[in-house]
Amino acid sequence: MIAQIDPFHAIAIGVEAHRLEAQGRSILHMEFGQPSTGAPSAAIAEAHRILDSDPMGYWESPALKERIARLYADRHGVAVKPEQILLTCGASPGLVLALSCLFAPGARVATARPGYVAYRNTLKALYLEPVEVDCGPAERYQISAAALEAMEPAPDGVIIASPANPTGTIIPADELARIAQVCARRGIRIVSDEIYHGLSYGEPAHSMLEFAPDAVVVNSFSKYFSMAGWRLGWVLFPPALIDAARARMGNLFLTPPSLAQHAGLKAFDCVDELDGHVATYRRNRELLLAALPALGLKEIAPPDGAFYIYADVGHLTDDSLSFCQKLLEETGVATAPGIDFDPVDGRRHIRISFAVSTDRVEEAIRRLIPWFKAQPAKK
Amino acid sequence: MIAQIDPFHAIAIGVEAHRLEAQGRSILHMEFGQPSTGAPSAAIAEAHRILDSDPMGYWESPALKERIARLYADRHGVAVKPEQILLTCGASPGLVLALSCLFAPGARVATARPGYVAYRNTLKALYLEPVEVDCGPAERYQISAAALEAMEPAPDGVIIASPANPTGTIIPADELARIAQVCARRGIRIVSDEIYHGLSYGEPAHSMLEFAPDAVVVNSFSKYFSMAGWRLGWVLFPPALIDAARARMGNLFLTPPSLAQHAGLKAFDCVDELDGHVATYRRNRELLLAALPALGLKEIAPPDGAFYIYADVGHLTDDSLSFCQKLLEETGVATAPGIDFDPVDGRRHIRISFAVSTDRVEEAIRRLIPWFKAQPAKK
Repeated sequence: MIAQIDPFHAIAIGVEAHRLEAQGRSILHMEFGQPSTGAPSAAIAEAHRILDSDPMGYWESPALKERIARLYADRHGVAVKPEQILLTCGASPGLVLALSCLFAPGARVATARPGYVAYRNTLKALYLEPVEVDCGPAERYQISAAALEAMEPAPDGVIIASPANPTGTIIPADELARIAQVCARRGIRIVSDEIYHGLSYGEPAHSMLEFAPDAVVVNSFSKYFSMAGWRLGWVLFPPALIDAARARMGNLFLTPPSLAQHAGLKAFDCVDELDGHVATYRRNRELLLAALPALGLKEIAPPDGAFYIYADVGHLTDDSLSFCQKLLEETGVATAPGIDFDPVDGRRHIRISFAVSTDRVEEAIRRLIPWFKAQPAKK
Repeated sequence: MIAQIDPFHAIAIGVEAHRLEAQGRSILHMEFGQPSTGAPSAAIAEAHRILDSDPMGYWESPALKERIARLYADRHGVAVKPEQILLTCGASPGLVLALSCLFAPGARVATARPGYVAYRNTLKALYLEPVEVDCGPAERYQISAAALEAMEPAPDGVIIASPANPTGTIIPADELARIAQVCARRGIRIVSDEIYHGLSYGEPAHSMLEFAPDAVVVNSFSKYFSMAGWRLGWVLFPPALIDAARARMGNLFLTPPSLAQHAGLKAFDCVDELDGHVATYRRNRELLLAALPALGLKEIAPPDGAFYIYADVGHLTDDSLSFCQKLLEETGVATAPGIDFDPVDGRRHIRISFAVSTDRVEEAIRRLIPWFKAQPAKK
C-alpha cells in the first residue's frame, strides 16, 4: 500500500489569500512560517556579484560548511567538523535525509502533538510509524524526558523541536540533558529540529548537540536568516553516519542551490540586521499576547521563541479549517488551521504567524478584535 | 535493515580534480553532467531584477507551470494542465517524488544497465527493488518493449531514459509506442526521465507522454537550460496522482528556489542562446567520435543526444575508478568511472562529458591521445 499523506492545509489558505489579494482585497499574510523580510543586504549584494561571475554548476561550499561548524563552537561550545555538515535544499529535504539515514521502514518515531505537519507526514511517506505524544499546555506542548521514559516499548527515535512549531515553546537546558540521558539509555535516536534557533525572547535555545553528541540536527536559512525562498538548510550528522548520509545526499538530492550558498555565507556577517528582525518579532509577540484578552482568547503558553501564537478557539469552533477560511474571507487575515499540527485537538486551534512588520500586526489586531467579539459561541 | 546506498563515485573524482586545480594544475572537467556555461543572459538579468524587488518567500510560480505545460503542447502535441506540473529542486528530488507517489516498498522497478547511478540508489533508499536489465551496444543500451514483454513476473514499474545517461542513446518514437503498449497491457507504471530533452544531434527526442498518458515525466533546467546549480526541475503527473503528489511535495520538499523559478521562466525565451550551446556540443561530439580510433577506443554506440561518450576501456582495465583516478592524475582530464552506471560491466567503461567549450575538448584530445597510446594492455 502506497502511504497516504495529508495535505498541508495552510497552503490552501495561502492560495485563497492570494486569490483574494489579486481581486484587490487587503490581505495580512500570517498563515505561513516565513519572514516577510528578504535576505540581509550583504547576502543580496553577494548574489548580484556571483550572478555576474560564476556559471553556477553543482556545488557544495566548503567555506559555508566551515562557517556553520564554527557556529556550534561559538554558540554551543561543541566541536563539529565541517564534513559532519551536509547542505540541503532547505530543512524539509534535510528531514527526509535525516530520517532516511537513521531508520528502516516500520521504525517507531515519537513526536509531540501538536507538532509541525511534515514530521507526521514525512514519517508516513518513509513508511516509519509516527507515535504522537499528546502534549498539552501543562507540558508546554513539548515531549519530556519523563514521557520518553514511560513509553513502552521504547520508540526507535524521537523528533525534538525547540523552539517548536506551532507553539514556539523552548525546552530548557536541564530538560534537554534529561532527554539525552533517557534516549542514550533506551537506545532512542534523536533528530533535533533547530530551525527556529536565533529566534527567542527569553533565554536562547540550546542545541541538542550539547547533550547528545549522536543527535542528528536539522537547521536552515529560512527563519533567522530570512532566506526562506532561497531553499538552503543543513543537517549535522555524527561521524559514524557521514558516509551513509553523503551517499544519500548525492543520489537523492545532489546539491543545494549554489547562489544560496554564496549568499548564506555572507548572511552570517549580518547579525545586526537579522537581530533587528528579531526585535520586530519581539514587539509583535508582545502586542499579540496583550491583545488576546480583547479577542476573548485564553493565553495558552506564551511562545519562548519562533514567531507563532497557537491559540485555542475551541469556544468558537470544532472545525479550524472552516474557521480560518471564514476569518480570511471576512477580515483578510490569513492564519493556519490547527489541524495541520494536531489531528486530534487541532480542530480547536489556529496558528498566527507574527513574522511580519509591526504595523501589519497592529492592523491585524484592529480587524480581529471586532470580528472575534461578533462570533457566536459554538452550538 | 537501513538500506545501504552506494556513493556517487564521480563526486570523489570531482573533489580530487578541484584539489589538483587548487594546486595550480590545469584540469579539464569532463566528470560531471553539467554545462560549463551559465544560465542564459535574460535569466541572469531577471535574477538581478528580482533580487532587488522581491523578498522571496516560499513560492510556486503559476506562470512557470503554464509555460512548461505549453512546452508539451508546442513540442509534443500533448495537452497538459499547469496543475499537473510540480516544480522541484532539480530532477533528483523530482525522481524521489515520482517514485514515492507511484510505488510502495518492495515494488520491483526495471532500469537499463548501464543507467544513471541515482536510479538504482534512489530505488534502494526507498526500499524499492531495482531490476536491472542488461542492455549492451546491440540494444543501444536501452530497455526495449521486447525486454519488458519477456520479464517474468512483470515489474511494477520501469524507468525510461531517452536520451540516456551515460550513453546518450535515444529511443525512437515507434519503440516508445511499443513500450507504452506493453506497459499498459502488463500494468507496468512508467517513469520517464526526460532531463536531456533539447540535446539531440539527429531526430529530436519524443516524450513518453505522447504514447503513455499515465506516465510520470521528470525533467529539469540543469541540462538544456544550462542552470544546474540553480536547482530547478519539474515532475509531470497524470491527473489521478496530482493530489497525492502535491501532499508529498508540500511535506517532503516544500518549494523550489524562488529566484530559479523567475529566471527559469525567462530562460524559455533564450532559445537562440541555448541552441548555441547545443551547436557547441554537436561539434564536441564530432571531435570526440573522430578521435576514438586514435585513442584506441572502439566506437560503442554514438550518442544521439545528451553530452556523453560512454567508452569501453576493457582492454586496459577492469577497475574503472582507479583508471579514472590515474587518468586525472597524469593528464588533468577528469572523467566518471563506469561503475557509477553499471555495477557489472562498468568496471570496464568510463564516461566523458563533452558539455564544455570546444577548445577544452580539443585540449583533452591532445592530452588523451599520447596517454592512451602509452597505456599497457591489461595483464
